[in-house]
Amino acid sequence: MSIITLLTDFGTKDEYVGLMKGVILSIDPDATIIDITHQIDPQDLVQAAYTITSSYTYFPKGTVHVVVVDPGVGSDRAILALALEGHIFLAPNNGVLTLLLREGRVESLVHVDNSDFFLETVSQTFHGRDIFAPIAGRLSKGLDIHALGDQFNHKNLVSLPLRQPYLSEKGEWIGAIVWIDRFGNLITNIDQNSLDKFCRANPQKKILFQIGDHKITGLSRNYASVKAQSPLAVIGSRGYLEIAINCGDAGKYFSAQKGDLVRVSLTG
Amino acid sequence: MSIITLLTDFGTKDEYVGLMKGVILSIDPDATIIDITHQIDPQDLVQAAYTITSSYTYFPKGTVHVVVVDPGVGSDRAILALALEGHIFLAPNNGVLTLLLREGRVESLVHVDNSDFFLETVSQTFHGRDIFAPIAGRLSKGLDIHALGDQFNHKNLVSLPLRQPYLSEKGEWIGAIVWIDRFGNLITNIDQNSLDKFCRANPQKKILFQIGDHKITGLSRNYASVKAQSPLAVIGSRGYLEIAINCGDAGKYFSAQKGDLVRVSLTG
Amino acid sequence: MSIITLLTDFGTKDEYVGLMKGVILSIDPDATIIDITHQIDPQDLVQAAYTITSSYTYFPKGTVHVVVVDPGVGSDRAILALALEGHIFLAPNNGVLTLLLREGRVESLVHVDNSDFFLETVSQTFHGRDIFAPIAGRLSKGLDIHALGDQFNHKNLVSLPLRQPYLSEKGEWIGAIVWIDRFGNLITNIDQNSLDKFCRANPQKKILFQIGDHKITGLSRNYASVKAQSPLAVIGSRGYLEIAINCGDAGKYFSAQKGDLVRVSLTG
Repeated sequence: MSIITLLTDFGTKDEYVGLMKGVILSIDPDATIIDITHQIDPQDLVQAAYTITSSYTYFPKGTVHVVVVDPGVGSDRAILALALEGHIFLAPNNGVLTLLLREGRVESLVHVDNSDFFLETVSQTFHGRDIFAPIAGRLSKGLDIHALGDQFNHKNLVSLPLRQPYLSEKGEWIGAIVWIDRFGNLITNIDQNSLDKFCRANPQKKILFQIGDHKITGLSRNYASVKAQSPLAVIGSRGYLEIAINCGDAGKYFSAQKGDLVRVSLTG
Repeated sequence: MSIITLLTDFGTKDEYVGLMKGVILSIDPDATIIDITHQIDPQDLVQAAYTITSSYTYFPKGTVHVVVVDPGVGSDRAILALALEGHIFLAPNNGVLTLLLREGRVESLVHVDNSDFFLETVSQTFHGRDIFAPIAGRLSKGLDIHALGDQFNHKNLVSLPLRQPYLSEKGEWIGAIVWIDRFGNLITNIDQNSLDKFCRANPQKKILFQIGDHKITGLSRNYASVKAQSPLAVIGSRGYLEIAINCGDAGKYFSAQKGDLVRVSLTG
Repeated sequence: MSIITLLTDFGTKDEYVGLMKGVILSIDPDATIIDITHQIDPQDLVQAAYTITSSYTYFPKGTVHVVVVDPGVGSDRAILALALEGHIFLAPNNGVLTLLLREGRVESLVHVDNSDFFLETVSQTFHGRDIFAPIAGRLSKGLDIHALGDQFNHKNLVSLPLRQPYLSEKGEWIGAIVWIDRFGNLITNIDQNSLDKFCRANPQKKILFQIGDHKITGLSRNYASVKAQSPLAVIGSRGYLEIAINCGDAGKYFSAQKGDLVRVSLTG
């Protein structure tokens, strides 16, 4: 019993994901393959980095996670195999593992270049099918990660320049929208811990959230704690601050876009 | 061998569905998980109610069906486990089971509140991952439904105010569009049996369908029984009247929307 | 261990694909079901023909491939079972197998009409659920293809009038866009072999690609071999010429549509 997850920007309108699964099953017919999502915005490494980091712990240890958001496919960018916290990750060396490497303990980091485990013919445009899938199938069948290639030097890891929330001169905590989900919820890069810390500094004050000119007072426990069609701020399921509309679409309501700022302040 | 189906409004652009599957497989690695759909319009309980009712019989008895269209997540709305016609259903008590309860025989109805079976940390915004998924995994491994909590009183069931077709003063049978499918087919709430009964009242007359100002005469056997790009009325695969365009998109053709009326009359 | 692939134009917003899987698993609980894609444009037989042809070889021999793009559902169009190169294909007799039949060796071609293997009630609008799915489940359990019906006469095969690239009077090689993928890559019907042959005729000349008034010189090895946001021509993962934008969307950039011409010439 072995689980392989797939996280890509391939979408579902083409045969790309299906072919990866065909290749995996040709090697490991017993693999259980789970789609995390294939709707990462094309080439959006930041969103992929957040998604894999908040996802992998919900799978059993031993799971092989394949992350293919890979604008450099066919170039000389390396492919990495990473063993971390009992899970294995396959991804291009393009920064998509940046957040993960910060949060978990690295057990091994390997440069995948043993072409014995690739498909016989490797295209220049679809390594998901020709390299990642057959490697994932071998790993899920029990191949040792060190068979894939030499150790990779941490110094050569590409790191994403991830925007972090920061304290403004006025004392506001300023974050940004990282992702707008299916419901239109605005997911920020402000995590629960730093928000708690920010509030504890002035426990007698009220918390105020601002997006554009819109203000929201107080943190709600859940979507249904305000009236339908009303805005709210809530800690979402990834552990980050979200701006939402109960039974509505905050993305449309605020005409918000990825990258827009969200400001947090204490008042009263 | 156990099957779990998922029916949600989570969409597929986020990791939400993938995480539910990770949690299920962490508990029951042998579960076969099937997506019915995740594209229910956000918070559309009516569409979810129709979909689960016309879907479950195509799965083997013993299947666990998880229905998460749940605008009240984190509030005090109850979570229900329902055994009906040899299948098990997990859903919030928000009316999404209304149609199912009318059509099948209830074997058990339980209030899911034994938190021993939840994830250790339960978020306020994603019970699909934190409660529904682990419960589904336990049920598919054979846990007795009564271990989940006490019997739930039928009187406390939330019921959806579902629009029913009705007879107008002029003697027209008036229904509404419940759903517009991928092909643009307009699926109504007029079922085959009531349509048959309506027609049999005047067997020598012709049947006429009206949507807005457009008229369609006669019921077609299938899409291909009219010319390409022509409108038709047909009994769809759910057993309900559909208005369609052969090789076309009736939603666009008629500028139709969910809730629009469809009128049936006898003529000639 | 048996694999069934599904390739349809059903989309994923309705329960249609889920019900096919429920029916398959009711018959063969051990089947592994893989979605190739369900986002074929409605009724687009050409795209389905290309997709199944460039997909099936990535699955193990013995796989059952179910292709349901079927505008004639419920009419008297036949349903075919085809054994070819060690794989089995189920599809309507509407041309969707045209390309496959050209490229592989036919082992058997059978007219599926033994209704013993259909669902008890067969609708007029959803043979995917009522005929294709139960037949696929039987085949994956080992049923002999000849149990499904008599041999089908090749003369009665419907053939798609597929556009082929051709040489213009000016000596240009003229192809067309067959599909625009998730990334906006423009996939043409010009395959690598004919392109090679065309170039070898004048090896000292440079190759030039034209789409509308836009010109691209030279064939790139991969997307990343030009600057971000720049156009390129490349052999895609299906083995056909693609026009792409590195880290961009060629469909939007060129306002391109399926059917638009792509012209190849030799210059200098």
